[in-house]
Amino acid sequence: MKIVIDAMGGDLAPLEPLRGAAEAAAELGVGMIVTGDEAQLRACAQEHGISLDGITLVDAPKVIPIEAEPTSLLKQYADCSMAVGMDLVARGEADAIVSAGSTGALLVGATFLVKRIKGVKRPAIGTMIPAQGGRFYLLCDAGANHDCRPEMLTQFAVMGSAYYEKIIGVEQPRVGLINIGTEDTKGTELQVAALPLLRAMPGIHFVGNVEARELPLGGCDVAVCDGFTGNVVLKLTEGMGKFLGGAVRDVLFSNLRTKLGALLIAKEFSSFRKTLDYKETGGAPILGVARPVIKAHGSSDARAFKNAIRQAKSCVERDICGAIAEGVARQKAAAQENA
Amino acid sequence: MKIVIDAMGGDLAPLEPLRGAAEAAAELGVGMIVTGDEAQLRACAQEHGISLDGITLVDAPKVIPIEAEPTSLLKQYADCSMAVGMDLVARGEADAIVSAGSTGALLVGATFLVKRIKGVKRPAIGTMIPAQGGRFYLLCDAGANHDCRPEMLTQFAVMGSAYYEKIIGVEQPRVGLINIGTEDTKGTELQVAALPLLRAMPGIHFVGNVEARELPLGGCDVAVCDGFTGNVVLKLTEGMGKFLGGAVRDVLFSNLRTKLGALLIAKEFSSFRKTLDYKETGGAPILGVARPVIKAHGSSDARAFKNAIRQAKSCVERDICGAIAEGVARQKAAAQENA
Repeated sequence: MKIVIDAMGGDLAPLEPLRGAAEAAAELGVGMIVTGDEAQLRACAQEHGISLDGITLVDAPKVIPIEAEPTSLLKQYADCSMAVGMDLVARGEADAIVSAGSTGALLVGATFLVKRIKGVKRPAIGTMIPAQGGRFYLLCDAGANHDCRPEMLTQFAVMGSAYYEKIIGVEQPRVGLINIGTEDTKGTELQVAALPLLRAMPGIHFVGNVEARELPLGGCDVAVCDGFTGNVVLKLTEGMGKFLGGAVRDVLFSNLRTKLGALLIAKEFSSFRKTLDYKETGGAPILGVARPVIKAHGSSDARAFKNAIRQAKSCVERDICGAIAEGVARQKAAAQENA
Repeated sequence: MKIVIDAMGGDLAPLEPLRGAAEAAAELGVGMIVTGDEAQLRACAQEHGISLDGITLVDAPKVIPIEAEPTSLLKQYADCSMAVGMDLVARGEADAIVSAGSTGALLVGATFLVKRIKGVKRPAIGTMIPAQGGRFYLLCDAGANHDCRPEMLTQFAVMGSAYYEKIIGVEQPRVGLINIGTEDTKGTELQVAALPLLRAMPGIHFVGNVEARELPLGGCDVAVCDGFTGNVVLKLTEGMGKFLGGAVRDVLFSNLRTKLGALLIAKEFSSFRKTLDYKETGGAPILGVARPVIKAHGSSDARAFKNAIRQAKSCVERDICGAIAEGVARQKAAAQENA
């Protein structure tokens, strides 16, 4: 198996992606292809004593800036490290790609270079978010498609369900529609129209409307929504974690007595914090494209990149793309039957 | 000043609303009018030794169920405790009303009985949400209007800004538009269209798009959005608080050592928890109607009701409705000038 990593993407490029690739090559038994400025990568490896065993460097010195118009990936930046990596995947020279570069550009590359699975209307971003009891829920769409039609939400449900089942190993995960109440009449036109479509969808275990309050409390395994709502949920979750985490830290550092208390709970507290750490959980898959494309967090370090590569490997091994293709085909057949 | 409390609304009716009214009458120097089943209220007062000094009971034994169609408040339930209370306010026999009953019904009553301020398109729900550093931000709309036009968002900004300025005492509070990025092109059609309107609005201090991540971190004082997004933000904030609060509790009760640690931080931890407690912050004002209408949390106890009454009193004293009327008139004048 060969996995591409875009070494020029992310805040800590190229050192941390390269380091992550080297660790993955050594520990995970995958062949790594690293795209980026080859001279810079070789110098960086030498300076930091990073072994290039098991790593193929592909020279692509150009970088697509985070603020560039995403579609510029196809023309002006067609030779950048991200686009070159995408091409390798599209041509079958690699099985999957990980990048911490611009989400918009990655979506464009996934859609137009790696290409959509047959029948998929719009690829979506899936993101695993920690919830009560050490569980996770998959938020889908976490920000790719702001304006959605009801049929797009049913497809997010099918794709998210396939991903959750294959990667987390839960059969028939509980799919919920993020809404502002549990009754059938709740929500905007989008949710009201999507609800019966989701109920009628074969092959998924749909549990109905789920209020945002229930998401961190384990109300569903796959939370379906438009990309605007999903991005609000994702970002607010991050912000609340930062706010409450900071407040607890302030409590612990209030005075000598609380600092002593902090010492006594340090071990358990740090193991809880670890369950919230995105660096442990890998990246966000772009669902609905022909091969696994993983968006790593912009501030990923080597460990986060290695975990994203591990996740890409699982996606290839468990044939996520095949499972999504099956689900989408089943959805289409059901729709034709009902038509 | 006379404030109505709907004694039949909320999970703990009628005991806790009655108790809250009695405490408010004794401590806040306001005349309380309590609507509800008079016989039941008198029996309840006697049983629990609650003084009815300073309280006028108005007999309205019927209750509008939480699941009833909101507009049924105007016909089928026109004689229920909530509607009777609204009528008292509409007729000028009371200055404000507090109810923990159905939000939908309260909105209908506020709009059609108490009536909108001239020029207000749609009343909105404002909710104060705790943020970093002991601050609060006002979320508006927190759930009244799911499908919004851009002009509605500008009005929410004007109303929310007036409320924040008067109640929190911050001049020119920072108004932000909840969005999925800070650039002008971000968001759905609604946000893209609302952004220039908000920028052009006189009399408010608009700071631009604000990502959901920044809300709990103090990114703005007044966070403007459609009611669907607002309700997701409100509910997810509650859920995250419950999830992380529970997780911290689990850490503290892990074993004997952590329990000792918990003892050492108990005082500071409980004072932080208090800042997150909705019972301290009162209820959610319905903004844009002719007199203050406060929605108390469904599970409010006497203390929460008393705080909601205190808030209603502040709204009357500081003439929130007048300030909103002024802001809306200024907005209209500016729109006509630009037309």
